[in-house]
Amino acid sequence: MYRRITQFTDIWDAQRTLLEGVGPVREREYVHVFESYGRVVAEPVYSPADLPAEHASHMDGFAVNSKDLENASPENPVRLRVVGESLPGRPSPAKLKPGEAVRILTGAYLPEGADAVVPQEFVSREGSEVVVSASVKPWEYVDLRGFDVRKGQLLFGAGHRVKAADASLMAALGIEHVSVLRRPRVGVVAVGDELTESFEEARRGRVLNTHSRFTVRLVEAAGGEPVYLGIVPDDVETYKEFVSRNIGSLDMLLSIAGSSISEKDVSSLSAGFMNRSQYVHGLKLQPGRIGGFTFVRGKPWIFLPGLVMSTLNVFMFLAYPALRKMQYMEPRFYWRRSKAILSGNVYFRKYIDFVKVVWVRVDEESDPPRCYPILGESSGLSIPSRSDGFILGEPGVKQLESGTQVYVHYPPAL
Amino acid sequence: MYRRITQFTDIWDAQRTLLEGVGPVREREYVHVFESYGRVVAEPVYSPADLPAEHASHMDGFAVNSKDLENASPENPVRLRVVGESLPGRPSPAKLKPGEAVRILTGAYLPEGADAVVPQEFVSREGSEVVVSASVKPWEYVDLRGFDVRKGQLLFGAGHRVKAADASLMAALGIEHVSVLRRPRVGVVAVGDELTESFEEARRGRVLNTHSRFTVRLVEAAGGEPVYLGIVPDDVETYKEFVSRNIGSLDMLLSIAGSSISEKDVSSLSAGFMNRSQYVHGLKLQPGRIGGFTFVRGKPWIFLPGLVMSTLNVFMFLAYPALRKMQYMEPRFYWRRSKAILSGNVYFRKYIDFVKVVWVRVDEESDPPRCYPILGESSGLSIPSRSDGFILGEPGVKQLESGTQVYVHYPPAL
Repeated sequence: MYRRITQFTDIWDAQRTLLEGVGPVREREYVHVFESYGRVVAEPVYSPADLPAEHASHMDGFAVNSKDLENASPENPVRLRVVGESLPGRPSPAKLKPGEAVRILTGAYLPEGADAVVPQEFVSREGSEVVVSASVKPWEYVDLRGFDVRKGQLLFGAGHRVKAADASLMAALGIEHVSVLRRPRVGVVAVGDELTESFEEARRGRVLNTHSRFTVRLVEAAGGEPVYLGIVPDDVETYKEFVSRNIGSLDMLLSIAGSSISEKDVSSLSAGFMNRSQYVHGLKLQPGRIGGFTFVRGKPWIFLPGLVMSTLNVFMFLAYPALRKMQYMEPRFYWRRSKAILSGNVYFRKYIDFVKVVWVRVDEESDPPRCYPILGESSGLSIPSRSDGFILGEPGVKQLESGTQVYVHYPPAL
Repeated sequence: MYRRITQFTDIWDAQRTLLEGVGPVREREYVHVFESYGRVVAEPVYSPADLPAEHASHMDGFAVNSKDLENASPENPVRLRVVGESLPGRPSPAKLKPGEAVRILTGAYLPEGADAVVPQEFVSREGSEVVVSASVKPWEYVDLRGFDVRKGQLLFGAGHRVKAADASLMAALGIEHVSVLRRPRVGVVAVGDELTESFEEARRGRVLNTHSRFTVRLVEAAGGEPVYLGIVPDDVETYKEFVSRNIGSLDMLLSIAGSSISEKDVSSLSAGFMNRSQYVHGLKLQPGRIGGFTFVRGKPWIFLPGLVMSTLNVFMFLAYPALRKMQYMEPRFYWRRSKAILSGNVYFRKYIDFVKVVWVRVDEESDPPRCYPILGESSGLSIPSRSDGFILGEPGVKQLESGTQVYVHYPPAL
């Protein structure tokens, strides 16, 4: 009478199959450089200019010709006539002749004829002259034209995610607009007659839809544009119509809950009806074994199970790498990872041949860093709140021993 | 004729003096729980409820009394009469009598008289009865009331920064609004006649104000509310008036550039005029030695030098820990840190007795993680773009050798 999952797919096989059906977003947007934080550049960015554009002073002082000071010393100070001033944004028009200097501030361009800067700490000024009692080497205290960035140099390859420092650099080079990928549009829908968005209704016994908020935040942190689609009821026909209506404008659909095998599990039911041939239901991932995916009109539809740790794990193992691939990034199941010493034993009693996921709190300040397993049921809403990342129990492994060195994998947000 | 910095203050002493003058933000805001991401809770948060609120099913199946199944086996299957249905948000009103069961879905509450759940995989249904061929232990497949969170339990201490998972947890417990600290308001102002916000003017020779954008982003990532105050000209009187007018509404002022010793360095000049007694100018930090701070009407005013690496370093060593202290966090000069093997020699030729800061690119995927020094002048705008974090050369250290294990310190954003 009840459906059964007869075969659980290896999680890496499932990931591979999903990723084969997913490609990078094609559309580009042309955005202002200061609106480009967090966006992914669509094409390689080359520098349109040298930085600095001219030889520039590294100090406040005087632009000089180093030859004039060849023999300068405390016993033999050299006097130079100050013939102008070079300020940032207002270079001196003067061309230095022998015996001349130009007052110059940090960042200002060197006047013609100058090849070094004497910092003001090393001179004394007397009216229209400066007295210098030390020699300087050619190009000393000078930021050479193009030392920082050369015209034509590759700044960022396609797929680079723009940091604030990148935006400032591009702006300083005169790049005002940048071609970036359109963010992958990720629909998020929750399934269940019991769900509500209203705290008032939740107080009267309905279940507050908290997982959608959480998932939306994960999508955002992964670079996607979340499109929150609300709650659909436990009805297969309504659901199929809902998916047909929405999938066209999305790059990916994430449904939350309804992925198990009861009569109310309309995510897995509907998906099975809509595309049986590309239907994966049941993963060798625990928690997360009742997750799966299919494709509708070429778009991936991932069904995240409703128990929070399963929601999170299936997001990380399927949705996250797919979102990365859509943005030209290596399709990993974690944002970053680092090593830590496991503090506490973890025993696996079931699903031994699955990949088991254990969430952990990390103390990165201890030396070496330590991580503490946050055990509990997969329905434990407090687990992600108390965790920083997760470790893996490989297939066949029945126990992770305290003291073992493990990789902690971090989600893009929690 | 020119000012000099006669004494450079030890950077840790400077940090201590600054932090002594800085306290946590006092004002609170009462925000919706789903608007609380990234905010800092102002008071300890205790759970108002048990989670789950009642014993709940961990599986789809049937709620039973385990005594009824004590002797159940494939040879001796037990038949139970199905007397109702318990769904999430819609518990069954039935009270189980001996020989009875209630259909139950994951997350739904157990009916009275039930003490276990038989997963549907282990039963066969025949009309109004289910046939069970295995026993269950008391409370098997049941999420006990309060197993996840107990009523009255401390969820977060004052000073905890809310994650998405924390917000979902609080919401599920019925917490609709949270008391959070007002974000510290941080004024950001850039100094210099040469500066412009216009790309068009920058093409005609002015200098684009890129550092403010960058600093605003750092303030945001550190939990502050950036208040961008534009550009002030190189004029001490205008500047002093500007500071007097604005400081009252701020928790901190960050000025960018104008912190050196020339006649145009109106940040350090004005600050010196406004509060000589709490004036620190000159830091044993390189790059960053011409940074400093003072207090005006009790508010910290930190002057960040104009060369980008100095801007960044003085932000990290002074502004960042102060911002953390204002939010009840341990006042560290880094967001997080991790160990890596330095790949490349670093030689220090000047400022040997200072703390030297070297920015590095990190390969966290290599094993062990490696970091590569990004060398160049402190004016190099490309350095932060190419970096992930920084390492320190302690006072007296003339060289960091390739192969050494070092701590990489990460900024809250780059």
